[in-house]
Amino acid sequence: MGDLIGQVVETELYFIERSEFVRVKGLNAPRPEIVSLYADMARLNVLYMVAKAGSGHLGSSFSSLDIISHLYLSELDVAAGDIFFSSKGHDAPGLYAVLDAEAILPEGKIHALRRLEGLPGHPDVGTPGMTTNTGSLGMGISKAKGIAFANRLAGRRNKIVVMTGDGELQEGQIWESLISAANQKTSELVVIVDHNKIQSDYSVEKTSSLGDLVAKFTAFGWHVERLDGHDTEALAACFERIAKIADKPKVIIADTVKGRGVSFMEGTAIDSDVEMFKFHSGAPKADEYQRAVEEIEARTAARLAELSAEPIRIERVDRPIVVQPTREQKRLVPAYTRTLLDRAEQDPALVALSADLALDMGLIEFAARFPDRFVECGIAEQDMVSQAGGMALKGLLPVVHSFSCFLSTRPNEQIYNNATEHTKIVYVGGLSGVLPAGPGHSHQSVREISALGGIPGMVMVEPCCPEEVGPLFDWCARQHDGPSFLRLVSVPYATDAVLPPRYAPKRGCGVEIRPGSDGVIVAAGLVAVAEALEAADILSEAGQSFAVVNLPWLNVVDPSWLADLATHYPRLVTIDNHYRSGGQGQTVLAALAMLDLPQKPSVLSIGIESVPPSGRNDEVLAALGMDGASLAQRIQARFAAVRT
Amino acid sequence: MGDLIGQVVETELYFIERSEFVRVKGLNAPRPEIVSLYADMARLNVLYMVAKAGSGHLGSSFSSLDIISHLYLSELDVAAGDIFFSSKGHDAPGLYAVLDAEAILPEGKIHALRRLEGLPGHPDVGTPGMTTNTGSLGMGISKAKGIAFANRLAGRRNKIVVMTGDGELQEGQIWESLISAANQKTSELVVIVDHNKIQSDYSVEKTSSLGDLVAKFTAFGWHVERLDGHDTEALAACFERIAKIADKPKVIIADTVKGRGVSFMEGTAIDSDVEMFKFHSGAPKADEYQRAVEEIEARTAARLAELSAEPIRIERVDRPIVVQPTREQKRLVPAYTRTLLDRAEQDPALVALSADLALDMGLIEFAARFPDRFVECGIAEQDMVSQAGGMALKGLLPVVHSFSCFLSTRPNEQIYNNATEHTKIVYVGGLSGVLPAGPGHSHQSVREISALGGIPGMVMVEPCCPEEVGPLFDWCARQHDGPSFLRLVSVPYATDAVLPPRYAPKRGCGVEIRPGSDGVIVAAGLVAVAEALEAADILSEAGQSFAVVNLPWLNVVDPSWLADLATHYPRLVTIDNHYRSGGQGQTVLAALAMLDLPQKPSVLSIGIESVPPSGRNDEVLAALGMDGASLAQRIQARFAAVRT
Repeated sequence: MGDLIGQVVETELYFIERSEFVRVKGLNAPRPEIVSLYADMARLNVLYMVAKAGSGHLGSSFSSLDIISHLYLSELDVAAGDIFFSSKGHDAPGLYAVLDAEAILPEGKIHALRRLEGLPGHPDVGTPGMTTNTGSLGMGISKAKGIAFANRLAGRRNKIVVMTGDGELQEGQIWESLISAANQKTSELVVIVDHNKIQSDYSVEKTSSLGDLVAKFTAFGWHVERLDGHDTEALAACFERIAKIADKPKVIIADTVKGRGVSFMEGTAIDSDVEMFKFHSGAPKADEYQRAVEEIEARTAARLAELSAEPIRIERVDRPIVVQPTREQKRLVPAYTRTLLDRAEQDPALVALSADLALDMGLIEFAARFPDRFVECGIAEQDMVSQAGGMALKGLLPVVHSFSCFLSTRPNEQIYNNATEHTKIVYVGGLSGVLPAGPGHSHQSVREISALGGIPGMVMVEPCCPEEVGPLFDWCARQHDGPSFLRLVSVPYATDAVLPPRYAPKRGCGVEIRPGSDGVIVAAGLVAVAEALEAADILSEAGQSFAVVNLPWLNVVDPSWLADLATHYPRLVTIDNHYRSGGQGQTVLAALAMLDLPQKPSVLSIGIESVPPSGRNDEVLAALGMDGASLAQRIQARFAAVRT
Repeated sequence: MGDLIGQVVETELYFIERSEFVRVKGLNAPRPEIVSLYADMARLNVLYMVAKAGSGHLGSSFSSLDIISHLYLSELDVAAGDIFFSSKGHDAPGLYAVLDAEAILPEGKIHALRRLEGLPGHPDVGTPGMTTNTGSLGMGISKAKGIAFANRLAGRRNKIVVMTGDGELQEGQIWESLISAANQKTSELVVIVDHNKIQSDYSVEKTSSLGDLVAKFTAFGWHVERLDGHDTEALAACFERIAKIADKPKVIIADTVKGRGVSFMEGTAIDSDVEMFKFHSGAPKADEYQRAVEEIEARTAARLAELSAEPIRIERVDRPIVVQPTREQKRLVPAYTRTLLDRAEQDPALVALSADLALDMGLIEFAARFPDRFVECGIAEQDMVSQAGGMALKGLLPVVHSFSCFLSTRPNEQIYNNATEHTKIVYVGGLSGVLPAGPGHSHQSVREISALGGIPGMVMVEPCCPEEVGPLFDWCARQHDGPSFLRLVSVPYATDAVLPPRYAPKRGCGVEIRPGSDGVIVAAGLVAVAEALEAADILSEAGQSFAVVNLPWLNVVDPSWLADLATHYPRLVTIDNHYRSGGQGQTVLAALAMLDLPQKPSVLSIGIESVPPSGRNDEVLAALGMDGASLAQRIQARFAAVRT
């Protein structure tokens, strides 16, 4: 048995060095057996990365690891140009573990999952071994076809293997991408469906059943295989078999178990009931981590003993100390849940739609209380939004939910189409803004104001504290006669923002939440307003008095209100938790330029200027110059130049 | 025989009054026979509408008319809440003809296809009898599910019939939408595929074969029927049969003939060769119109004679006189074609992708000359863009084509995903801006600057004349190190814009193409710059001297250049052939606000403020206040107020 049993302690983390993977690969044993061992070792490193990062996707890394290990050990000639990548992308830790073992990743990277300059939460081409950026679902097969096209143009037919999720198959782009691959007979393309039966909230069956997958792929002209995705012998045999098929692209439906390899993380039990899978994302608790490590260690040790080999040497490092926040963390999503439930009680026309994010968007209670008025659409944002369009045409008030990064972009034309029907729909986007920074740019939503703000009638709003959620939702649902977008930060965040008594949102007008005289900072949302207040504190200590205005209106501004503000303050700063281009600041500044005023304030516009990095929240905010201290510094630097 | 034979004259148009449809419906004959007659009469009115409008979709109106006639005469209880709509939407003239015959349309509307206050080129809910806005493909089944949900919540299960195209089935949203309909057993939903085998450019088979459609729908859990879509008896029998199926949504694959009902317009001949179908959109020539009318008239007369009934009474009206333009019409697309061919000769890495718009985007010659470097993706914009992403990762230079309205929105997330990989891709959007105004808002692309402009690294440019196409394309393809979007107006347009000798685009900087002293008008593109010049002429006659600057940069502006401009001119006007919100003007004004200048110009920002109407180009431009005369008036009004 392994040497860690009973000795794993809460203050340590454990990982396996590359050299041990090399040793195991050299053992005298059938290749499929080695692949299984190797995959288990990789699981231990996944646990390490995710535990150290404090977040990450265990479940689908585990379900995919036997397959990924098989590919790198037995199928791919990477040096010759063979390619594997994951379309779902949230199994990145699993792939990282293998890329590290194969020395494709630079030494040391696995210690820095979800850290600046480390390994992003979802795949990015900046990481060695990563072919394409994924994390936005459904794009992988299309990307692979483009790669195959380029290869063919260069006279090559390298193997291209793409892994998809099963929930991911609900995305329309998947089916769009299957058609031409069949027509082009892209036989160098192999798609593997990691069919672990569980998506982010519930089972695939409960969320939006895929029906007969074999029949579907067959009807789309693909060669279809189905096997146990943990059976490395079956995998080897299957790849050998399909190598001979030269006139069709191929799909392997790999039946897997989400969380495979750690008994209490395995998701086989939840298929048929409503219980949620606990290990889709997020780090295991300390005791769970210990039990998982011990279990894998014991299993690998037993296997190695059968091969008369030494157990795996496992390295120990101190578990990083997580600094607990000293200030109260405010949460918008629970406030949103309360608002939605309350308004749904009052308005029988209110219906809620979700794209497989009921938990994250705070909809579990709504779904339970109003089952007839809740639609789980699966990962099918275009279909969701157009369904909402149909509902609105029939007089319902659809409230449409997803993460902002997806909701503002995937169904972009559908939202516009609905808007041209002049109906009322409330779109609610979670995970807005650059935080959490761990998942990386596919999930950091910093483009939705520009992507949707130009739609006629569309009004986008963002609350700066839990107390502002209800009033803004009510404005959208009751006062506004058209589409609206409620932009919600999902990370808990400390803020000093306090709304004035009897606060009522007034279209396009901000509200001063901190007085000042030298200038004014305008911002919206939980993170940006909190950091603006922090910056004002720092500036105040330096003798500069900046007011802070909460302007919850992201794409509209009232000219008279702005004229008052601009007359009052000689300096105006806008802060966007969003790209500067197309953000709230740009709307404010364009409106300012149109005002006829004898004197206008000097202006500074701060926002995100390039694709944001993945990392810990504090380090990413600092790297972007968006934390309070950086903001204060940038404000000082700007106005030092124009001080008269 | 009919009374028009040999008497149809080039100066007349012909239509059938409602009363004649009523008479035919009352004839003593089997219902399917009446339906066929009625459909033929509707075809004659479609010809009338399209000939009068000068544009419209004959081919798919004709292929769908037997089905639509059957629905309204034999299936739908409209008063009770049964619904039919077309997801493809470009068969709108066909539906209008039936809605007019059924007195659902207000009297007289059929005389005003594609006219302001008339009937839009694609369906709009503002028209009586139109359930939903379509024209953007792939949304119809989703919309129908939303309507079914609302009905069920109200305790009703009204029949909902949706027509799709066959090319439309290449859109991913279609397949996305099929999944949940099967899971929800939405048996009140009947989808009819108008399977006329031809999409906008080529046959479906050649463009992107759909393979075994019956197998596909069956695999998605739908009940499938297949029949001859012109056999009105078979249609009646089929609807009777499927009415009994209560546990599945139903699809009828209706084999039809594009252009059905006018022998020389029928598209049966082109299935297997490369010839293009001539009657997808656009009006018939005068002689074609005459032959078509005579043919339908003769056929209906013969059928009526068999029923011992009078021939159809056909009304004559004068064909509207089309005023020929007196000034030369400039065309950007041919200039683009020449540029692309030339650059492709020089750069073997240049590849072109199209989403079923090779003709409209000027790619026919490219496809013929570089077949290995041309990818016809079908109506699958998401797949196309992600394919381009894969190609760019492998070192190719993909040039991606579609209409701007679709290219900027349908694959919005895919374009962003590609941008996060820091590759170089040139997106080329045709049909940009509010003209042509005939097709209506689904095709009037006035939102792409905002929808894409905020993407880091993305630079969007628009040429004001054919001579500017090459230099801007070269800047995108050679000088810029990232994604770009070339926005092309597709309508021919007269313009006085002349670029200076040795013109070379400089990032973010405009070029003065008309001098002035009282103020400056900034604009981009063939239409906006032409109208700006026209406005400057008018203002000049009124004693006001306005310069015109061509600023081809839509989402970036050089601050120093702008500071010079703002110092030079006391008045600054921006004109957007785009929504004002999120347009070029907003970028310019936001940049202006950030400048530290002792004195800033007074500003006027003109753009589109609400969903634009369908109509004739000149009348829509005037209605929007965007023609030269309106612009001059608005400029005068604005600056009269601030004149000092």
